[in-house]
Amino acid sequence: MRIAYQGEPGAYSEAAALLYSPHTETLPCKAFDEVFDAVVQKRATHGIVPMENSIGGTIHRNYDLLVDHEIPITGEVELDVVHCLQALPGTKLEDITIVYSHPQALAQCERYLKELGVTVEAVYDTAGGAKLVAEQRLRGAAALASRRAAEVFGLEVLQEAVQDYEYNITRFFVIGGALPTDGNKTTIVFALPSTPGSLFRALSVFALRDINLSKLESRPIRGRPWEYLFYVDIEARRDDLPCARALTQLGEFAKWIRVLGTYKGWERGKVQPGG
Amino acid sequence: MRIAYQGEPGAYSEAAALLYSPHTETLPCKAFDEVFDAVVQKRATHGIVPMENSIGGTIHRNYDLLVDHEIPITGEVELDVVHCLQALPGTKLEDITIVYSHPQALAQCERYLKELGVTVEAVYDTAGGAKLVAEQRLRGAAALASRRAAEVFGLEVLQEAVQDYEYNITRFFVIGGALPTDGNKTTIVFALPSTPGSLFRALSVFALRDINLSKLESRPIRGRPWEYLFYVDIEARRDDLPCARALTQLGEFAKWIRVLGTYKGWERGKVQPGG
Repeated sequence: MRIAYQGEPGAYSEAAALLYSPHTETLPCKAFDEVFDAVVQKRATHGIVPMENSIGGTIHRNYDLLVDHEIPITGEVELDVVHCLQALPGTKLEDITIVYSHPQALAQCERYLKELGVTVEAVYDTAGGAKLVAEQRLRGAAALASRRAAEVFGLEVLQEAVQDYEYNITRFFVIGGALPTDGNKTTIVFALPSTPGSLFRALSVFALRDINLSKLESRPIRGRPWEYLFYVDIEARRDDLPCARALTQLGEFAKWIRVLGTYKGWERGKVQPGG
Repeated sequence: MRIAYQGEPGAYSEAAALLYSPHTETLPCKAFDEVFDAVVQKRATHGIVPMENSIGGTIHRNYDLLVDHEIPITGEVELDVVHCLQALPGTKLEDITIVYSHPQALAQCERYLKELGVTVEAVYDTAGGAKLVAEQRLRGAAALASRRAAEVFGLEVLQEAVQDYEYNITRFFVIGGALPTDGNKTTIVFALPSTPGSLFRALSVFALRDINLSKLESRPIRGRPWEYLFYVDIEARRDDLPCARALTQLGEFAKWIRVLGTYKGWERGKVQPGG
């Protein structure tokens, strides 16, 4: 098993891959589409991509890539994004004068950094900041990155969970590999015309069968101002009879439907499904 | 009229404020909550905040701030995010060896930058990159930022619209100021228990009255695993009788509802409503 992810070693996506399957081999990629390419070209057995974050929202780009490829979703991971202030071993908190990280991480720790009274400097990704501090042996400098990044680059974590908002979760999809036999959740994408009641009719196919939905999101379709895409997570297997019937009926209303995969939903605090 | 926005002068949020009201005064703020504070403390008459991007998704943080404050939404703007490669006047494209921008902008122009064969360097925000090139008179350097940033910092646009995906739109809400008399769109937030059919019942209040919805998004509520928040845009004024009745009926199903405002929906290519 080898999981392709976007980012440098130590990136949160790599941490998510290792949470899904603790001793797996990982393959860093520069961009999200390269993660899909790595699976298509069999350089990796699986890929992992972030789909939504509790602060930043849904990453539409990765839904587009799922629709554009024939690679099914086979797993789900939810990762707590825990920013750790990390520096060369032996560094004291009061010696830190500059902190390197991705602007989004710096923004999520804004109050903390202000109290620390340090200069901040943007870098391309969080793990890249840790790499910079480690490789250039920067004294008096720290990075904001995952605990995994500190392990990869031999840095010491000075303070853990320094973000201003404690609830910061990223949800990832695992793609590729064998179809899971214990799937209990199905993700679909479908398009509807923007007419009153069209979504209501579409949702009736689930409601009338007592099937619960755990995510529903509309998105305008580019170039087609009166059509919407919907992302829906269904709490059922694709081939459960009620779900299969609901999807058939949905086909009567939707312009198109794509089932992106049936997989085992992530259970927080439980043993990892891919371990 | 003075509109507070998050970012440096030349930021896309400032460009959105000027698109909404071309000759308005603008007030830069460091963080989103400072935009709300500026309106509460009357340092600005209005604020403008990004709510969603066609690539990046919904910015949940700003929905939270809307719910936490009593400042109504009074307007809407959609801005095309057009990244412009900009440098000191007289610079030629072939002289550029390094490009500064926010990592998200750099990622959105990845293919373009690869073909250009330049080094990229992350900065805290797009306008900050333009400022850096301008103030330090960096020859052979360019920034990726808005056309507005080039105007603010006296840079020359070498190439316009260099992003890899052409469809990149950010939707902003204008908050504060007088309640609009020409509103035709209403944004609400409500909470539902996660039980089969609860959303279906909630949507029935609109569908049975032929009221169209132009956005619908679910979001788990932190700390309450079986409750969801919903963001809904309704294509009606809040006090239109069918809409008012629908909201009353929604109150029977929802744990709580907040009407965030009624405003005039942005019409692409039309004269600006706030001009």
